[in-house]
Amino acid sequence: MKHKGPKQGPEAPSARAKRTAAQHALTPTGMGDLLPPQAAERRTLARTLLKTFDLYGYNLVTAPAFEHADVIERGLDTTDPRELLRFVDPDSGEVAVLRPDITPQIARIVASRLQDTPGPFRLCYDGRVIRRRRGRARRHKQIAQVGVELVGWSGIDADTEVITLAHQACREAGLNTFRIELSHVSIAHSVLDDVSEAVRPPIVEALARKDVALIGTLARDAKLAAETRKRLETLATLHGDLRVLDQADRKLRFPRAQRALKELRGVINALCRNGIDGQLGIDLSETRGSSYYTGVSFSILSEGPGEPLGGGGRYDNLIGRYGQSAAATGFALDLENLQWALRQAGVAIAGSDAVRIALAGPSRSAVETLATTLRAQGVGVAVIPSMHIDDALAFARSWSYAGALILGRDAAQAVRARDGQQRAIGRSEWTDATSLCAWLDEPVGG
Amino acid sequence: MKHKGPKQGPEAPSARAKRTAAQHALTPTGMGDLLPPQAAERRTLARTLLKTFDLYGYNLVTAPAFEHADVIERGLDTTDPRELLRFVDPDSGEVAVLRPDITPQIARIVASRLQDTPGPFRLCYDGRVIRRRRGRARRHKQIAQVGVELVGWSGIDADTEVITLAHQACREAGLNTFRIELSHVSIAHSVLDDVSEAVRPPIVEALARKDVALIGTLARDAKLAAETRKRLETLATLHGDLRVLDQADRKLRFPRAQRALKELRGVINALCRNGIDGQLGIDLSETRGSSYYTGVSFSILSEGPGEPLGGGGRYDNLIGRYGQSAAATGFALDLENLQWALRQAGVAIAGSDAVRIALAGPSRSAVETLATTLRAQGVGVAVIPSMHIDDALAFARSWSYAGALILGRDAAQAVRARDGQQRAIGRSEWTDATSLCAWLDEPVGG
Repeated sequence: MKHKGPKQGPEAPSARAKRTAAQHALTPTGMGDLLPPQAAERRTLARTLLKTFDLYGYNLVTAPAFEHADVIERGLDTTDPRELLRFVDPDSGEVAVLRPDITPQIARIVASRLQDTPGPFRLCYDGRVIRRRRGRARRHKQIAQVGVELVGWSGIDADTEVITLAHQACREAGLNTFRIELSHVSIAHSVLDDVSEAVRPPIVEALARKDVALIGTLARDAKLAAETRKRLETLATLHGDLRVLDQADRKLRFPRAQRALKELRGVINALCRNGIDGQLGIDLSETRGSSYYTGVSFSILSEGPGEPLGGGGRYDNLIGRYGQSAAATGFALDLENLQWALRQAGVAIAGSDAVRIALAGPSRSAVETLATTLRAQGVGVAVIPSMHIDDALAFARSWSYAGALILGRDAAQAVRARDGQQRAIGRSEWTDATSLCAWLDEPVGG
Repeated sequence: MKHKGPKQGPEAPSARAKRTAAQHALTPTGMGDLLPPQAAERRTLARTLLKTFDLYGYNLVTAPAFEHADVIERGLDTTDPRELLRFVDPDSGEVAVLRPDITPQIARIVASRLQDTPGPFRLCYDGRVIRRRRGRARRHKQIAQVGVELVGWSGIDADTEVITLAHQACREAGLNTFRIELSHVSIAHSVLDDVSEAVRPPIVEALARKDVALIGTLARDAKLAAETRKRLETLATLHGDLRVLDQADRKLRFPRAQRALKELRGVINALCRNGIDGQLGIDLSETRGSSYYTGVSFSILSEGPGEPLGGGGRYDNLIGRYGQSAAATGFALDLENLQWALRQAGVAIAGSDAVRIALAGPSRSAVETLATTLRAQGVGVAVIPSMHIDDALAFARSWSYAGALILGRDAAQAVRARDGQQRAIGRSEWTDATSLCAWLDEPVGG
């Protein structure tokens, strides 16, 4: 699934601080590294989300990082071709593309590899996509996504499940302050059908910015029918809380809009029954970037990243492009944006499963024995060569360890990373993870 | 880290059965999908391995899927350039390469982004690399790897830690029947230094195949000194159990070999103290594929895939190519090969954290309420539209669910996927995960 719009927020301070001039020179723009502890935190976050998908019965699939361009493009027919990173596959001579979106891959898999398996198909994924950003400097960017697709089930129940799951996934990740903005793309599409393709892009852009005056000007310049102009101007005002739905009902009286609004209302009622009412909003000018959406769609918004945390919606015509028609809906979450929103909300993500300490000592075998004993109790142990407590403390702090231990024959010197406090401890304490962790103010690992 | 040699074993039957003609046509050769349940099993396996790395203090890093070709090639100087998948980055006009190996990326990260962080650096990764295979049909292949790098610590203690960790990781994955074959690349390198570059490749190949007769022929054809020929022939015989070390000591009397053998013996003694003696072997003709190895190296072998499960070793000159010298050692495991070896050994990997059931019923709200109740207890629930028990059973079996439940008003019909057994259950039972799981013969999820 695609998100649209440029990122407006500033880069995360922690990421920026770690990026040096040397790093800029070495890796392609937009293709950065994820360092400790952010990489481990992202992994934990992905695990939490996949675990939630698992509880809803979704099955992980893994698709390749690049594919034949024609296969991917079949699923993205109106995407700006300059957004794709293409290359010639030296083995086949065919044009390949680094995937900009995983949903067309899932569509290919369902239509070509799961045709003998009974549906509905609940599939999920965790992977990186590459997009070239629009704008003056056309730069690519890798986006880490997790997402789900529910294929072979049409209607309100399936739409509701997927939006409920997106909500639940954000909650399980620890985020409580987010908004789900609902739309039904066929409302905007039905109006845009009366707009010639040549003038459509600036009008879609003006709709996205809700610029009623600009829409009026563009519509007059393009000599659109008065009714079409009026509908476009109306659409641009139909965003806000759930009361917008009643306004839309009154203002958009044509049949396709009425049908779409009825579907949208059905989904909203079901979401309210699932207890998600407080976080819902409406934005009927939303068309979403990709061409494949056909029905109820949504974006997840939060303080922080300046662009959606994720989103998705119904796409009933995509699977058929790969040879087997099926209704479908789904969503993707952008892990970087979600991490950003969590940081903004003050929610910490654990990078490690274990409490971790640094360990040194003059006797290699004593160090090894203790490391083995503690690891068996779920404590992470990094053996370090220096036996100076200051070095050990600096190491522990730099790598987000809870503390360090310098092992002597009868006593060990322990230091806590949090506050630098030191103390001597005896053998019975240093071999027992519970008492060691108690002093470190950490829960016992595992 | 690289593995070498073509895969000799057959493709896994389960993977082969799922690959259809349509699939072949759609994705580039060697770039297949991973379907349920294999994708989830691989994810579980990666998690187990990363958790083991975490207990040894290793920190996850994530590097981009492609980089500037000159940066990657700096770390792979004698790799066959035809093994790399290159393309022109349309944004910078520079040549980019899909990474064939993650170790040079880690070297770049340590030298350019962690220079102000105290060592030793314990880093780990989980990612896919792309290699073009040698051979008549030059086809690329994606390889899913996890691995570790221990940078900034030279000598026997570091070598021992990394090999112990590789051993422990395989054990934690559930594999007990594997062998670690040790080498010290400087022994073979010191002999190959006396061989001109033109004749080196066939001799390395003959060494890998331990073909003493062919080595003799090649050496005579190339007019190598008798002593060099003798040493090459000797090397080709020095493989087997740990007693080979004593033979090597007697037969390779030149100083560089003696130094290397002393180091190797030190590591082996330390590994034996760590209890790993029974699984060790020696293969001194091993040179490993990549140019960057400098010291003690190893391969992990097992029944099944026909190529190593993984391997690694010391590479003290690689980090310096990125601007900051540091000793280093590490290893990578090939997840596909490890999955294969586990399957061969009859070890099952859990795909899901949860017991999962399919659920249907005429009342949507009753179904939703029960799904929420069971999910809160750690049971995965997939709601399905069909209320026929046979459909539910077929669905459960196809997607590796434990069973299905068709919910009526006062009673529910339950079916167990394992044996198709059906029974009616009452409300108190269907809302309680423990009793439901007991009947399904599954541990309670979570």
